[in-house]
Amino acid sequence: MPLDTAPSDIADYFSRVRAHSEALCEPLEVEDYGLQSMPDTSPAKWHLAHTTWFYEQLVLWPFAKGYKVYHPEFAAIFNSYYESLGTLFTRAERGVLSRPTVAEVYNYRAYVDGAMAALLADAMHPDRAEIISRTILGLNHEQQHQELLLTDIKHAFYKNPLKPAYKVAEPAAPTGTPGKEGWLAFTAGVQQIGFEGPGFAYDNETPRHKVYMDAYALADRLVTNGEYLEFIEAGGYRDPDLWLSDAWALLGQEGWHAPLYWQKTEDGWTAMTLCGMQPLDTAAPVCHVSFYEAAAYARWRGRRLPTEAEWEHAVATELGRGNLYSPDSLAPQPAAGGSRQFFGDVWEWTASPYTEYPGYHRQSGPFGEYNGKFMSSQMVLRGGSCLTPADHIRPTYRNFFYPHIRWQYSGIRLAEDRK
Amino acid sequence: MPLDTAPSDIADYFSRVRAHSEALCEPLEVEDYGLQSMPDTSPAKWHLAHTTWFYEQLVLWPFAKGYKVYHPEFAAIFNSYYESLGTLFTRAERGVLSRPTVAEVYNYRAYVDGAMAALLADAMHPDRAEIISRTILGLNHEQQHQELLLTDIKHAFYKNPLKPAYKVAEPAAPTGTPGKEGWLAFTAGVQQIGFEGPGFAYDNETPRHKVYMDAYALADRLVTNGEYLEFIEAGGYRDPDLWLSDAWALLGQEGWHAPLYWQKTEDGWTAMTLCGMQPLDTAAPVCHVSFYEAAAYARWRGRRLPTEAEWEHAVATELGRGNLYSPDSLAPQPAAGGSRQFFGDVWEWTASPYTEYPGYHRQSGPFGEYNGKFMSSQMVLRGGSCLTPADHIRPTYRNFFYPHIRWQYSGIRLAEDRK
Amino acid sequence: MPLDTAPSDIADYFSRVRAHSEALCEPLEVEDYGLQSMPDTSPAKWHLAHTTWFYEQLVLWPFAKGYKVYHPEFAAIFNSYYESLGTLFTRAERGVLSRPTVAEVYNYRAYVDGAMAALLADAMHPDRAEIISRTILGLNHEQQHQELLLTDIKHAFYKNPLKPAYKVAEPAAPTGTPGKEGWLAFTAGVQQIGFEGPGFAYDNETPRHKVYMDAYALADRLVTNGEYLEFIEAGGYRDPDLWLSDAWALLGQEGWHAPLYWQKTEDGWTAMTLCGMQPLDTAAPVCHVSFYEAAAYARWRGRRLPTEAEWEHAVATELGRGNLYSPDSLAPQPAAGGSRQFFGDVWEWTASPYTEYPGYHRQSGPFGEYNGKFMSSQMVLRGGSCLTPADHIRPTYRNFFYPHIRWQYSGIRLAEDRK
Amino acid sequence: MPLDTAPSDIADYFSRVRAHSEALCEPLEVEDYGLQSMPDTSPAKWHLAHTTWFYEQLVLWPFAKGYKVYHPEFAAIFNSYYESLGTLFTRAERGVLSRPTVAEVYNYRAYVDGAMAALLADAMHPDRAEIISRTILGLNHEQQHQELLLTDIKHAFYKNPLKPAYKVAEPAAPTGTPGKEGWLAFTAGVQQIGFEGPGFAYDNETPRHKVYMDAYALADRLVTNGEYLEFIEAGGYRDPDLWLSDAWALLGQEGWHAPLYWQKTEDGWTAMTLCGMQPLDTAAPVCHVSFYEAAAYARWRGRRLPTEAEWEHAVATELGRGNLYSPDSLAPQPAAGGSRQFFGDVWEWTASPYTEYPGYHRQSGPFGEYNGKFMSSQMVLRGGSCLTPADHIRPTYRNFFYPHIRWQYSGIRLAEDRK
Repeated sequence: MPLDTAPSDIADYFSRVRAHSEALCEPLEVEDYGLQSMPDTSPAKWHLAHTTWFYEQLVLWPFAKGYKVYHPEFAAIFNSYYESLGTLFTRAERGVLSRPTVAEVYNYRAYVDGAMAALLADAMHPDRAEIISRTILGLNHEQQHQELLLTDIKHAFYKNPLKPAYKVAEPAAPTGTPGKEGWLAFTAGVQQIGFEGPGFAYDNETPRHKVYMDAYALADRLVTNGEYLEFIEAGGYRDPDLWLSDAWALLGQEGWHAPLYWQKTEDGWTAMTLCGMQPLDTAAPVCHVSFYEAAAYARWRGRRLPTEAEWEHAVATELGRGNLYSPDSLAPQPAAGGSRQFFGDVWEWTASPYTEYPGYHRQSGPFGEYNGKFMSSQMVLRGGSCLTPADHIRPTYRNFFYPHIRWQYSGIRLAEDRK
Repeated sequence: MPLDTAPSDIADYFSRVRAHSEALCEPLEVEDYGLQSMPDTSPAKWHLAHTTWFYEQLVLWPFAKGYKVYHPEFAAIFNSYYESLGTLFTRAERGVLSRPTVAEVYNYRAYVDGAMAALLADAMHPDRAEIISRTILGLNHEQQHQELLLTDIKHAFYKNPLKPAYKVAEPAAPTGTPGKEGWLAFTAGVQQIGFEGPGFAYDNETPRHKVYMDAYALADRLVTNGEYLEFIEAGGYRDPDLWLSDAWALLGQEGWHAPLYWQKTEDGWTAMTLCGMQPLDTAAPVCHVSFYEAAAYARWRGRRLPTEAEWEHAVATELGRGNLYSPDSLAPQPAAGGSRQFFGDVWEWTASPYTEYPGYHRQSGPFGEYNGKFMSSQMVLRGGSCLTPADHIRPTYRNFFYPHIRWQYSGIRLAEDRK
Repeated sequence: MPLDTAPSDIADYFSRVRAHSEALCEPLEVEDYGLQSMPDTSPAKWHLAHTTWFYEQLVLWPFAKGYKVYHPEFAAIFNSYYESLGTLFTRAERGVLSRPTVAEVYNYRAYVDGAMAALLADAMHPDRAEIISRTILGLNHEQQHQELLLTDIKHAFYKNPLKPAYKVAEPAAPTGTPGKEGWLAFTAGVQQIGFEGPGFAYDNETPRHKVYMDAYALADRLVTNGEYLEFIEAGGYRDPDLWLSDAWALLGQEGWHAPLYWQKTEDGWTAMTLCGMQPLDTAAPVCHVSFYEAAAYARWRGRRLPTEAEWEHAVATELGRGNLYSPDSLAPQPAAGGSRQFFGDVWEWTASPYTEYPGYHRQSGPFGEYNGKFMSSQMVLRGGSCLTPADHIRPTYRNFFYPHIRWQYSGIRLAEDRK
Repeated sequence: MPLDTAPSDIADYFSRVRAHSEALCEPLEVEDYGLQSMPDTSPAKWHLAHTTWFYEQLVLWPFAKGYKVYHPEFAAIFNSYYESLGTLFTRAERGVLSRPTVAEVYNYRAYVDGAMAALLADAMHPDRAEIISRTILGLNHEQQHQELLLTDIKHAFYKNPLKPAYKVAEPAAPTGTPGKEGWLAFTAGVQQIGFEGPGFAYDNETPRHKVYMDAYALADRLVTNGEYLEFIEAGGYRDPDLWLSDAWALLGQEGWHAPLYWQKTEDGWTAMTLCGMQPLDTAAPVCHVSFYEAAAYARWRGRRLPTEAEWEHAVATELGRGNLYSPDSLAPQPAAGGSRQFFGDVWEWTASPYTEYPGYHRQSGPFGEYNGKFMSSQMVLRGGSCLTPADHIRPTYRNFFYPHIRWQYSGIRLAEDRK
């Protein structure tokens, strides 16, 4: 969405994104809003309030004349990581915040939404461009938290022996098994990657820059659960030759022997989904694997993971939008109808550590904290997942997580060298 | 309450205790029921359900013909520590159990209460004596959890920067400052301690047995906040000579410099209470100190802590009931009107490690797990606190916690040797 | 040794104990002197220097006119736990101190020994009584470290896959298997325990005081390896009913399934000894068990552990000295020739937590740190082991370790109630 | 050294490298050989034996007919990380291995050296090319451990309050202060980096490949201690804006406020060196900083760190060899005489995570474990240090450590973008 968006558009856009966060919470009981099942996750209530605080702190406070903050302590509670904006409440203890209650958090949202509506309606505001720019950043930020809200609820529900379902499963249509993957080949040369307007992108996607790539090929679909099961059954988790050194140490500590959420039962493999425990769909893309597992699987197959430049170059002409968020489908789907699955289904681990692009300069202050300060020891993922809002993904979009992380919808696409 | 209680009495007793648990929860929001702020504490909802499961598992299941458990998975969730009764859900993760919801837990309680009422009404049941005996144990068990429910909520609320109040504070009557403590002296000799009917007691209070005691004296009231403040201000927390070795190491790790919940503000010391943060009442008994702090304070005063035998012998003829649980007073109160504060206000740390009495034999199975298996590395506390139900305390009652524990209402009474 | 010891005696005594420490090190390579295999243990070199520093700090420095410390930094390195005497070097990192070298530590010993000899020869010294008193304390302190030196070397050697031997094993004479234990019975009544001169004892053995004991009986020998093996084979380590709660949690964490140092091989059970790995002698007393294991074993047998008062009362008339340290026998031996094994072989875990005796007052300063500050969360052991110097044990001697400790020579004697 | 080396040369090369390891140990006391001061470091004795085991395992065992291993257990002790070659002894516990003794390790070295000499003299051996190739790898491996041996000893000596010196310091010539750094500029374009024979290189330096680089400039010397001190004094360690997120969290945990080994005294800053504690030389390059500190410093200066491609391209025509290992100079030296300090002095942190080059394929088995399995979460360092053997460094050489590591001789060179 370009920065010259007309007033009605930005207001619409704002309402639409804000409403979506709340729609996602409809299936939740009051008790579910407060869950934090590990330090990496946050309660749904916290996601709702933190995204709201973002507008209050970075848009309303500086630009809405006479704005009064909803509650003076909320900044301390709902600031996530902006060291520049004050003391942080311990991340791992967000689950202990029973107050503000869910009802009060919705009040907080309504209060901020009202103030934002007024501000966005003020077409003559002297800082209008900056207001719109920060609002758009805030909306993209909220969309990221929409995906996290779902992944975090899934994790918390999995910890409960009752294995609650976020949504009642509908009878699944039988799916065929995809055939062997094909390969999309690309020739060597200097290419360009990175974002260049118009429209919104995060700073970490810029500047657009040249990159030299050797010839390569990418698989034309994602690795499936069935294929990954072969790796498990072939003893993949027990062969040190396949694993990075850090990964092998972690395997010993954690006892991993399958993706997160998989459980072997008398009736075969099952996996936790947003519809509770379900039989494993061998045709669907493997999901909830770490970078370490993705890399070990690729090595076992005699292949490798794509670099982020290879991936971005390959999708430059991709048209299909893929299986992104839709309330009717909250799980990765088998490749069908020629889909290459580049967008949606699962975030694809790349072989690229998350670093700054040539020419990137991290800003000072809160906007510099958004992306730049995380550029160490994390890996880039590309393409969005089945929980990513459809208007939130781009070919240049760079997601990033530590290589051991598994609670995100993360999967595998293979790559290989070509001459 | 003797085991030959008439049917109407036991049913009454059951209803009364059960209702009290629910009354304690009235001030809670739905969101508050799920909080677990550290591994030692449990959510209010869990206390409500766990105490219910106790009757289901140990009374209804074995004795109520045709009884159907409310939910087959609840045993896994609401069993606390009975290794003999199946796999335990990880204690530290009780906060992640958003389901069953609060409403469903109340349903569970109603379901079990109904079945219990029917069973207790069956005066001809062949196992009636055992049923009553186990029910009485269950009710005492529930009373213990009533106190924990409040101490656990207080801890969770303290973690919240909003410092919510469980109850709105009423304007406090001004209290005078107690004068210097007097001493109650006892002569040397063989005495008897321990429980001997009629009525209920835990197995760890038995058998009644002889003990030789040298001459000693006990202070005639508890140590006050004001007195403890002198210890702090005299550098007590920085003088290794005063502390046990384990304590000194812990001080270094935890940075303790005052009792739990104390905060120094510009306006003087304040402390968290069930009515939120309040100015420190220097006349009231010091509370939320560990055994380590109690022992260091006593050493600083040139005194010592009482043994549990000394304490029990001293209170044998004590008549007053003290400041036990009452909805109008949820805090320790200054000594007044000649009260010796033996019962209520705060649990009193003794110098006695929690071990078995001579002649005690820990049973096998769940009843043996109730008390006996905790007899290592914990210290005995005596007398009950301002949160203890008034019909739950006895001169022979032995409470026990690890020496570093501070979230209970625990305080200090001094003792000294006499010739 | 009484405090009125004539000059030549104290000098003799001093030389004898000092020489013994060095004799114990004869089998060591230079490399062995620096080993620290866990935070609980210390390098042999450190034991040699720390015991030396004790005289320097507490005898020579205050009383030897013009005494010059050997090295100003040694206090920082070789002070073990006297908070009152300055900053401590981190206990867990003693293994990193390659300097001073072994040769220099022996120089240090010679230097201090020379100064001590001169001081002890000064029969007219105005503080002679205090000098002798502190020297005797220092010698007893050194004897404690003599035992630790051996237990620590054993632990370090066990960690080495080469399993070095401190001493070459001599062919063992075949031992018979002791028959079923008999019982030594004692009647109820008030008894006295605790030390009352003449001679040396630690402050924690005093004052002598009255204790009421019910009737009881003690086994007339220690539990054997063979008997303990029956417990293992009966599934003792897998039955939660037998274990204290803390113990059961530890079992889960540590995976204990036999005493420390036991290994099951194709040829049966073996155990680490000071002569390297050796076949398990089923007739010898079980050793290297924790209090938790001792208590679980006793419970499995339907018995219990003795209290320290019961133990002390029982040995009051014991004449035999038992299998204490001798260079020819560095292992517990099977009961033979009517020995009741009260002294030597293994330290016997009692059911008594380590607390202060009635009337005990912990001193201020370094002498108060010797014993008193450890009086929490530890258990008393009695009787000495096969590594304890023969003139270092008494009926009143109280050793103490945490209930999970296993690297000491600790074993089991059963007790039972009598009418 | 090319693989077609004539027999006498390889034998010479072997003897020279082997002798150097032993020469480095000459200043050590027997006690020093066993020190392990943290899990990242290893005892000198272990370095000596592990490098020896490498030839035994990978050269002698497969190729020397009738070769008998020196000791069957040594593989278990001296294998460092080759999962494919058997069970590993716990890395963090190498300090507990007093046996084999130092003398026996030297015997082991002599035994293997003899066998290697015989094998290398056999010019007709059918596997001669492979033998030479593996031997050269082994010698490079040993050279890496030569540097580690010194960094590890320095770390262990620093932990000792006596702060021993590896070498007696000689009076230092006064050094001037380098002026402001100049800049070496490079234009944009496709360049080639990576190794392409003849001679030896590690697999991770291959294949030589194309890389597109934007225009950039590198500082013509390293950042000095004096310059880094300005960063400290300006509050650099307290400003979250300068630090990566992982770094800021670590700062909070570790309390870093200066490079490793720096201590502020009354007389100014001092730093641990191989000659003990010495006054800080402000003209010398800053050393013992982590990647996190290097990146924060660069950000504070408005600059950045070079990528490894930029660094390698810049040094392609560099002639000087720099301040590499020499027994007379064991510390980084101030830039002088036009030296650009690309080689020697300190390893230079780059902005490049350690990943595989395009076209790199990690082998299976032990040779694949040498470098490839470490390609996650580490950063590349370039150029060697003052402890690196002079014939061990190359423009293409890639060293790698985790971003928090500080005990290596690691420093900072600045870079900036150019148009």
